[in-house]
Amino acid sequence: MTSILVSQLAEYSGQSVSLKGWIFNFRSSGGLYFLQFRDGTGFVQAVVEKSGVSEAVWGACEQVTMESSVALSGTVSEHPKKPGVFELRVDGLKIIQRASEYPIAKKEHGPDFLLDHRHLWLRSPRQWAIQRIRDAVITAIYAFYHQRGFIKIDTPIITPNACEGATELFGITYFDEGQAYLSQSGQLYLEAAIMSVGRGFDFGPTFRAEKSKTRRHLTEFWMMDAEAAFVEHEDSMKLQEEMICAIVEHCLMHCQQEFTILERDTTPLKKIKAPFTRLTYTEAIKKLNELGSDIKFGEDLGNDDEGLLTRDSSVPVFVHKWPASIKPFYMKVDPANPDLVLNDDLIGTAGAGELIGGSQREDDYEILKSKIEAEGLQGEEYQWYLDLRKYGSVPHSGFGLGLERTVGWIAGAEHIRETIPFPRLINRFKP
Amino acid sequence: MTSILVSQLAEYSGQSVSLKGWIFNFRSSGGLYFLQFRDGTGFVQAVVEKSGVSEAVWGACEQVTMESSVALSGTVSEHPKKPGVFELRVDGLKIIQRASEYPIAKKEHGPDFLLDHRHLWLRSPRQWAIQRIRDAVITAIYAFYHQRGFIKIDTPIITPNACEGATELFGITYFDEGQAYLSQSGQLYLEAAIMSVGRGFDFGPTFRAEKSKTRRHLTEFWMMDAEAAFVEHEDSMKLQEEMICAIVEHCLMHCQQEFTILERDTTPLKKIKAPFTRLTYTEAIKKLNELGSDIKFGEDLGNDDEGLLTRDSSVPVFVHKWPASIKPFYMKVDPANPDLVLNDDLIGTAGAGELIGGSQREDDYEILKSKIEAEGLQGEEYQWYLDLRKYGSVPHSGFGLGLERTVGWIAGAEHIRETIPFPRLINRFKP
Repeated sequence: MTSILVSQLAEYSGQSVSLKGWIFNFRSSGGLYFLQFRDGTGFVQAVVEKSGVSEAVWGACEQVTMESSVALSGTVSEHPKKPGVFELRVDGLKIIQRASEYPIAKKEHGPDFLLDHRHLWLRSPRQWAIQRIRDAVITAIYAFYHQRGFIKIDTPIITPNACEGATELFGITYFDEGQAYLSQSGQLYLEAAIMSVGRGFDFGPTFRAEKSKTRRHLTEFWMMDAEAAFVEHEDSMKLQEEMICAIVEHCLMHCQQEFTILERDTTPLKKIKAPFTRLTYTEAIKKLNELGSDIKFGEDLGNDDEGLLTRDSSVPVFVHKWPASIKPFYMKVDPANPDLVLNDDLIGTAGAGELIGGSQREDDYEILKSKIEAEGLQGEEYQWYLDLRKYGSVPHSGFGLGLERTVGWIAGAEHIRETIPFPRLINRFKP
Repeated sequence: MTSILVSQLAEYSGQSVSLKGWIFNFRSSGGLYFLQFRDGTGFVQAVVEKSGVSEAVWGACEQVTMESSVALSGTVSEHPKKPGVFELRVDGLKIIQRASEYPIAKKEHGPDFLLDHRHLWLRSPRQWAIQRIRDAVITAIYAFYHQRGFIKIDTPIITPNACEGATELFGITYFDEGQAYLSQSGQLYLEAAIMSVGRGFDFGPTFRAEKSKTRRHLTEFWMMDAEAAFVEHEDSMKLQEEMICAIVEHCLMHCQQEFTILERDTTPLKKIKAPFTRLTYTEAIKKLNELGSDIKFGEDLGNDDEGLLTRDSSVPVFVHKWPASIKPFYMKVDPANPDLVLNDDLIGTAGAGELIGGSQREDDYEILKSKIEAEGLQGEEYQWYLDLRKYGSVPHSGFGLGLERTVGWIAGAEHIRETIPFPRLINRFKP
C-alpha cells in the first residue's frame, strides 16, 4: 500500500493507498460516513461503509471530530459521473489526535474572531487557496526576473532614514547608535546594488506606521522592487506589463483548483494581455473630468478616480508622467516638461487600486541634490545615495509591486487581510 | 550593431556589438588603452588602438576615470591563446558620466572604511561574485522546496513574543497596542501554517539584538525555515542533507565565473555528497574528549568544538539528540530517553559553524504546556501555539538555515559581513 498525497490521487485510480491529514468536515447517513479529508495538497471525500470495515474502524469513525488528524487507507475511485474527480473508499482509519471542539464552525464569524484565530482560520479551504495563489505569484516573480538576468538583492530592514519622507515610520533604538527605522522600501539600496549587478530585484517585508484603516492597508506587507541600469521610462513600463502578464499566466496555469474553491471567475484574468492602456497624468485628469470627477490637475488620484479610470478597461491602466510637485525627490524630471516626472502608477482592474508605482530615477547629481534639499531632507543622510550620481551615473528605472494587493486582485479577495498569513493592522499584531 | 551584455559575448564572436557599463580599471601603453569593463553580467577587457579610432574616441579614452559609465562599440574577439576568453576591439567610446575620483582605490582599506562605502564597495569583483553566489543559493532553495510540494509562507516580522526566550530582541512600540518585537524566527507561525498547507517554507529577515561581535554574527540576517507535517526526526535530517547537496550542486553548476574571481578552490565543494556524518550529541562529546576538548556532557558546543568535529570530515556533520536541558521548549522529547530531544545541528566543513538547526516538534499538548510553564514563559501568549496540539496535532519537524553562513561557507568568505548587501552589525546600521 503506497503512502500518497491528495495531489497524486489521479495517478493511483483503482489502487490501494494510504493518506495522512485532517478531517475538515463529515456527515453520516445510515451505515455510511462521508469524511471531508485534506492533507495540505488538496481535498478529497473519503467514504466509509459500515458493512465494509471492521468494528474498530467504524468505532474510530464515530470518534472523528472536526479537524481531527487521521491516517486513512482505502481504494482510489473515480467519480462515475465526474471524470477527474476522485474519492477514497475507506478500509482503514486511525485517529492520530482527536480534536477538541473546533472554534471555527460553519456559522458566520466576524473578522475580529477570525483574526484572533488566524492560526486555525488558515486551514479553511478559502484561506488555503489564497495562500497557494500567493505562493504562485511569488514563484512567477522569481522566474520572471531570473529569466531576464536580474538577481535578488536583499536590502536592509533596519535603516537610518525614510525613503519617502512623508509617511510615518516604526522606530527602534539601535544599541548605542541612536534611532533607526524599519524600511518602507528597499529602492534606494537597490539603486546602489544595480550599479554593481546591473539588474536586481528585492522582495521582502516593508513597514508603514500609517494610521490607515482600509481594506487595502497593512502595517507590514511584502514588496517586490525591481531596478535596472540603462532602462528608461518607456522600457520600464514595458517590463512592468510583461511581469503582470507573466504572473497572471502562471496563476491561470497552476491555480485552477484554487480559483474553483474561491468561486473566482477567471474570464477577466484571461483578458489581461499586453499592451495595457497608457494615459499620461494630464490625459487621465481630462478623462476623469469628462467622467464626472471633480479632480484637479496637481491632485493625487483617489480610490474613486482609480475605479473610474479602469471601469471600462479589461486591462490594467498606466497613468504616467505626473506633476513633480506631488511625487518624491528621486524621480527623474521629464526633459520635455520640467514640471513633470518620468514615473508611472499601474492601476489594476476591478477596483484593485495601485498595483505598481515606478519611475525613471534622477541621475543628475546637482538636480538630485537640490531636490533633496528642497524637500527639507538631510543631505548628509543621503550622501551615499548621491554618490551613485558621482561615480558612473547611468540612466536607470525601477518600480515596486505590492504583493498583497496583487494576490487580492488575482484571487478576487475583497480585503487585503486575507492575502498574508498573519496580517498586521493598526489594532493588531497577534497572534 | 547589436546591443549586448557581457554574458552574451561568446554568441557574438567576430561581430560588431555595443555595450553599456562601467570602467573599473584601465591602463595605457603607447598607442593603446586597456579598459577593464563591467556591466553587471560579467567583465571584459576592451582594447582601444589609437591608430584605429577617431580623435574624438581617443580623446574620450583619455578622459576615462575609474568607475566612469560608458557606452562602447567594437568587435568581439576571442583570445588567440585562451579559447572562451573574449575581448572587445573598440571602435567607439562615449562617456556617459565621468566619475569623480573613486574613493576605493586598489590599496588595502580597513573594514570600517569599506563598510562606510558599502554602496560602492559592492561593485568590486569580489563583492559582485559573492552577491551572485547569494542569489544562486536563494534560487536553489526555492527550486528545491517547490519541487517537493512546499509553498512559501511569509511569517510576520512584528510579533508579540520571543520564539527563543533567552536571546535579546529589538522592541518597537506598536501604536496603542503595546510592545512588539522584531521576529527572531518564523518557526512557530510556520508550524501553524503547515497544519493548513502540509509543507511550507519561510524565507525572510530575522533579527537578534545580541551584542556578539564575531565574524559570524549579524543583527539582521536572512533565515530559511522549512516545516513539514508527518515528517519525523530521521526524515527531517535526510531532507536537510538533500537541500545542502542541492544548493552546492546548483552553485557548482552556475557560479564557475564567481568561484574563479574569488579564487575559491571548488574541490572541497565537489565532495559535499550525501550521506553526511551523523553523530548523536553523546557520541560527539565522547569524540571531542578523545580529541582533547574538555567539554562536558550538558554543555553547548563552542566554535572550537565544531571545528574539531568537522576537522577531518569532507562532508557536514549532524550532531543530534541533544540534552533537553539546553534546548528550547518546542523540541520533541526523545521517546527512548526523556532527557534528550529529537533535534539536530548541522555543522559545515572548514570552520563554517552551524549551518542548520532543526528538530521534531513537541506535538503533545500537555508536555508542551508544562515545558512552556517550566521555562517561565507566559502560557497565555503561547495559547495559539498550544492550539495546534489541540486541533488535529500531528508529528512534524522543521529546521532553519542561516543564509549568510551558507553563502560564506560556499563562497569561502571569511567574514559574514561580505555575504549580505548591507550588513547590520552592533555598531553599524548605515548606509
